[in-house]
Amino acid sequence: MKVDKAPVPLILPNPHDPRLTERVAGIDQTGATVEINVPVERPLTLYLNAQEIVTMMTIGDYPEYLALGYLLNQNMLKYDDVVTEVEYDDDLQVVVVRTEHHTNFEQKLKKRTQTSGCAQGTAFGDLLEAVENVALPKAELRTSWLYQMTHTINTMPSLYLEAGAIHGCVLCKEGRPVCYTEDVGRHNAVDKLIGAALLRDGMPDVVTNGSQSASPVASGNSVPLHDRILMLSGRASFELVQKALMAGIPVMAAVGAPSSLAVETALRFGMTLAGFVRGGRFNVYSGEWRLRG
Amino acid sequence: MKVDKAPVPLILPNPHDPRLTERVAGIDQTGATVEINVPVERPLTLYLNAQEIVTMMTIGDYPEYLALGYLLNQNMLKYDDVVTEVEYDDDLQVVVVRTEHHTNFEQKLKKRTQTSGCAQGTAFGDLLEAVENVALPKAELRTSWLYQMTHTINTMPSLYLEAGAIHGCVLCKEGRPVCYTEDVGRHNAVDKLIGAALLRDGMPDVVTNGSQSASPVASGNSVPLHDRILMLSGRASFELVQKALMAGIPVMAAVGAPSSLAVETALRFGMTLAGFVRGGRFNVYSGEWRLRG
Repeated sequence: MKVDKAPVPLILPNPHDPRLTERVAGIDQTGATVEINVPVERPLTLYLNAQEIVTMMTIGDYPEYLALGYLLNQNMLKYDDVVTEVEYDDDLQVVVVRTEHHTNFEQKLKKRTQTSGCAQGTAFGDLLEAVENVALPKAELRTSWLYQMTHTINTMPSLYLEAGAIHGCVLCKEGRPVCYTEDVGRHNAVDKLIGAALLRDGMPDVVTNGSQSASPVASGNSVPLHDRILMLSGRASFELVQKALMAGIPVMAAVGAPSSLAVETALRFGMTLAGFVRGGRFNVYSGEWRLRG
Repeated sequence: MKVDKAPVPLILPNPHDPRLTERVAGIDQTGATVEINVPVERPLTLYLNAQEIVTMMTIGDYPEYLALGYLLNQNMLKYDDVVTEVEYDDDLQVVVVRTEHHTNFEQKLKKRTQTSGCAQGTAFGDLLEAVENVALPKAELRTSWLYQMTHTINTMPSLYLEAGAIHGCVLCKEGRPVCYTEDVGRHNAVDKLIGAALLRDGMPDVVTNGSQSASPVASGNSVPLHDRILMLSGRASFELVQKALMAGIPVMAAVGAPSSLAVETALRFGMTLAGFVRGGRFNVYSGEWRLRG
């Protein structure tokens, strides 16, 4: 991946996109009529070639980023697979990722569905297998970057400020935000973030809405986001650590607490994991050797 | 279902169960060593008879409740299916639900995996199909119950107070909590809650840990939790409204905001949906006719 060859544009949710919020009416505790904005939530069904993979509930912005990020993070698509097209159909709420050759994942899925069943369970084993090979880079994390990132996530124009009920995450380089995504589920926000970061390098034409052809995602199985820091608005679960690992991100910071398995996994792979990053304080549970004053 | 024939015992997470939290060490922003409790997160693989269904990330208490609640809420198990055994293996982290006859779901899954793929996507269509037949009961919701429930969820001894990074939900009758569950994911907490509420009627011997035989879950396809109120610690997404619908729960209240699809679905099925239930205030987005002063 050659993410750094050009400045990475800042990707943001658009809080004023009328497709992302909906005004709903109700009554409050006094019986008075109230109207508030709530985030839109809609199903998006993902296909890898002819294979139906999953239906995700999402706010629906950046479906192509979400699709690619999901497939990469689930190890259903490798960084060296050649993606020929990412096609999004707004009416059908379907996104199709097409690859030059059928992927390894489809063969695995076919074999396993005939024996033990659904993809979710079997994919879990594959995920652990996939991260076995991850070696995170050295990188560094400065205390000042953590404060800067906290400020960013708190003040950035967002759907959260507009409508609540939403999670955000930011991909930073040296505390400077390069990409910000939000969704009703944090896993979606992280998938979009990583899909976006990778696509902006290999497939600059694929942005949102509508069928678009695309060139290969990447060439070579290198660590793609080796100098990035992932900041989460909520807590750090295993799933999110795993996604960051898959993308080769060495540092993850969360406003909330981590789970035991998140800490364990971060320790095992030498990821720097910070939690309770708020109000001028933070804890680092793993990889503290990356921390500079 | 005959949930009311005996008083339903109060089910609670056990914040002092050493299996549910883990002490992790780290450093804080000054470089000082800190030790904090974080919630445990572990995989649990669910089988329906010989069919692998899903691997869930969970804190791991009440695996039998989680298994049954998940299958019921996903429409993979019907209320009139006869469950002969719920077997939990702590070493393998596997829970197996056995039914007298192979369920309709397994046939569907087999058919669909051969054509279009994984269970998650296809199950989504089935879910919408399943709730089509739901008719929610009249019931009522008093303003005072909402305040009582807010107080309950804020003050109950909980893993959240012990370790953070966790979601809770409470099943109430007239504002009185009958069941309280927590998990790293809200969908798990709701599955456990509903599995518990149903099991406590039909299968009182199945509690936690270890293989246990069980009698049928229920007889008849009636609405099981017609006088219950579901209170969530976070926001209300479609997934949670759908689970409540599947269980026939007529009233749902959330501390956070709802999504557009949650409101839409509640309106469509006549569910009472309250949001921002906190500090003496709330909004009701749907089914306000159930509200009494």
